[in-house]
Amino acid sequence: MRLSQYFLPVLKETPKEAQIASHRLMLRAGMIQQSSAGIYSWLPLGKKVLDRIAQIVREEQNRAGALEIMMPTIQPAEIWQESGRYDDYGAEMLRIRDRHDRDMLYGPTNEEQVTDIFRNHVRSYKTLPLNLYHIQWKFRDEVRPRFGIMRGREFLMKDAYSFDLDADRAREAYNRMFVSYLKTFARMGLTAIPMEADTGPIGGDMSHEFIILAETGESGVYFHKDWLAADLVTSVNYDEDLQPVVDKFTSLYARADEKHDPDNCPVSDGDLMSLRGIEVGHIFYFGEKYSAAMGATVAGPDGANVPVHMGSYGIGVSRLVGGIIEASHDDKGIIWPRAVAPFDVAVINLKADDETCTSCAEDLYAKLQTAGADPLLDDRDERPGAKLAAIDLIGVPWQIVVGPRGMKNGVVEVKNRRTGEAVEISPESALTMVMSDA
Amino acid sequence: MRLSQYFLPVLKETPKEAQIASHRLMLRAGMIQQSSAGIYSWLPLGKKVLDRIAQIVREEQNRAGALEIMMPTIQPAEIWQESGRYDDYGAEMLRIRDRHDRDMLYGPTNEEQVTDIFRNHVRSYKTLPLNLYHIQWKFRDEVRPRFGIMRGREFLMKDAYSFDLDADRAREAYNRMFVSYLKTFARMGLTAIPMEADTGPIGGDMSHEFIILAETGESGVYFHKDWLAADLVTSVNYDEDLQPVVDKFTSLYARADEKHDPDNCPVSDGDLMSLRGIEVGHIFYFGEKYSAAMGATVAGPDGANVPVHMGSYGIGVSRLVGGIIEASHDDKGIIWPRAVAPFDVAVINLKADDETCTSCAEDLYAKLQTAGADPLLDDRDERPGAKLAAIDLIGVPWQIVVGPRGMKNGVVEVKNRRTGEAVEISPESALTMVMSDA
Repeated sequence: MRLSQYFLPVLKETPKEAQIASHRLMLRAGMIQQSSAGIYSWLPLGKKVLDRIAQIVREEQNRAGALEIMMPTIQPAEIWQESGRYDDYGAEMLRIRDRHDRDMLYGPTNEEQVTDIFRNHVRSYKTLPLNLYHIQWKFRDEVRPRFGIMRGREFLMKDAYSFDLDADRAREAYNRMFVSYLKTFARMGLTAIPMEADTGPIGGDMSHEFIILAETGESGVYFHKDWLAADLVTSVNYDEDLQPVVDKFTSLYARADEKHDPDNCPVSDGDLMSLRGIEVGHIFYFGEKYSAAMGATVAGPDGANVPVHMGSYGIGVSRLVGGIIEASHDDKGIIWPRAVAPFDVAVINLKADDETCTSCAEDLYAKLQTAGADPLLDDRDERPGAKLAAIDLIGVPWQIVVGPRGMKNGVVEVKNRRTGEAVEISPESALTMVMSDA
Repeated sequence: MRLSQYFLPVLKETPKEAQIASHRLMLRAGMIQQSSAGIYSWLPLGKKVLDRIAQIVREEQNRAGALEIMMPTIQPAEIWQESGRYDDYGAEMLRIRDRHDRDMLYGPTNEEQVTDIFRNHVRSYKTLPLNLYHIQWKFRDEVRPRFGIMRGREFLMKDAYSFDLDADRAREAYNRMFVSYLKTFARMGLTAIPMEADTGPIGGDMSHEFIILAETGESGVYFHKDWLAADLVTSVNYDEDLQPVVDKFTSLYARADEKHDPDNCPVSDGDLMSLRGIEVGHIFYFGEKYSAAMGATVAGPDGANVPVHMGSYGIGVSRLVGGIIEASHDDKGIIWPRAVAPFDVAVINLKADDETCTSCAEDLYAKLQTAGADPLLDDRDERPGAKLAAIDLIGVPWQIVVGPRGMKNGVVEVKNRRTGEAVEISPESALTMVMSDA
């Protein structure tokens, strides 16, 4: 993409309304614009990162055997009345009356909707296991939306729903999602720690929140230091028994601060770490809660009808954009992990009216595209300082700076945004260096 | 994808509520399920087609220089009050009051929202031309939703908005979208005819509806027979003057029936065709209508502030799924054009408990994946007749049928869903045949 043809409205001033780093940086980098309280438009740079995150989530859901569907945003009140949640949900649910005075709502989550799909089509245990997910906008009418897209009202979420014949098989489905979440977040360059969460009246140990570590995180977390060394990306065969993998990870201590009891912690002080974290995922087994209430039954091998056992599995896709920025930025701006970066590399032409510079920058841009990279070419007629600051701000992993001084010696500057390391090398070596980091 | 692990709830019965072919076939093929009147969930097969259509739309928008953003579904009433449309829009607008009693609405379209983004960030003509689009769910509270997703309430639409300094440049933006629409629909295997549409008080010739031809179309269209032979997919350089291309196409007669006057038609009876059509796109230049009302101005080359000239460009993405089915089906089911098909080819193992059949089918399935195709393997333990009927119904372009009789002679049957032509050839030749159609 040529920056001269892009829409990247970076702000020089730090917006007053933004209290946390990700909100400030997303506004400054021209990623989002507020529409109303807690509701945002995603500008080209933000949309691109959102898409890259959603695509990683999608790929790992598919690998784990989940099937993508798309449920609507507007749901009928009836199914929520059937489950009993219509009255319970409170003011966070955006309630709507349509032109025929039917009660509708903007889905804050989709247990009822997906259970309705299931009961309409599935009759036999032979269709199981089944896991249906979608990546769709949700709405929760927060009383005080804040922190930009981190606690907004309209947000993009991946929610998956598993259906199994009994609790044992539901645990297998749960384990598949548990492992796929570790892989999903690891691919984004994040350390995500699953923490036991409340299961409510169902009880058991089948509810985990996934917390990514960030100094500016919303809540405190306590965990065994071995978590930071845990290898989360080992290859997984989802057809195998995953219980040992899950056991390995859950055997390491990890608790949110409200669940951490210093007097009864099994980890020694030397091994215990305390950092801040941000919740980006939540997986939950809830058994027959919705299937029993809504009549979602299947005939088992013995022919008897039983309510299916269900679980739900959420990932805050739009929230992750902010979460990754909280976990990865410096005073100059965002530092994107390569896997979610809006562009792989920026080619910065410091002097757009210099033929040698322009020819070299254009050549690098073309060759990067041919090599399969997604480069940004800063071909604007701007001050060098403003260009470099803007590219630092938007956090592209690699920068190739083409300037008249270097051109005299046949070199460009290649800078790694994360380490800050810069070297002057030939354009050909610059290509090799950037492409070898894919 | 293995059908045994997929969720494809095909129906044997024709649903009573469905009046038109696409609605019937989408329900029978397990593509959609109704949530409430005019609101649907997209099941895996439907979601996949929807994605493939959206991706073609996206690629052609990007090629034409439009930039993808994502505006929210819920908009504040204020911007619609500014434009004057809040009161005008009527009961089709889904009006919502949030928990703080603020007036909100579910966007039926996004002129106001995008103009608000523009006026917040663009100050100078140097940022122009600019074209921002998104592919997002819209809501129109139709008084009588019908025809499945063809006239639903919640629907997926691509809407683009162009911003230019003056009317001449706005025409260039209009022409780019005009040409990109021809390319977009042609890639989907559709004949789409642009018809002059009402421009309202603005006047001029800068409004076209794009109609695809289908016997079951909602409205009659009259057009010169040369339209059917028009080559719509010639390569286009969007940097060139596109007026000659647009003139070439608009010089051919084409009118919706309500605008066709038999007594004043320039086309001879022998050259005039009359068929049914379905509107799938609409492009529209509206000048300063929103920019003047909402203060979206830029400083021109002379420093004076002027309201920008805008146009909007819609494609009914979810509607196209139905439109393509209306244009391409037979009594056995859907016939997908290859470019939007949910799978490229189905490998049908007629006898899942036969080792030779299973080994051949698995081998074909693996080799098709390796070759880059997206195959569906029918590995279910089902009657052959039910399998063949289901695959015909869901309209996969190619079928490779592996059965015990053919296996004795070392052959499989390759069937083209559209032509119905079937040949018995070796599995290797079957691969070559299917892959050469990519």
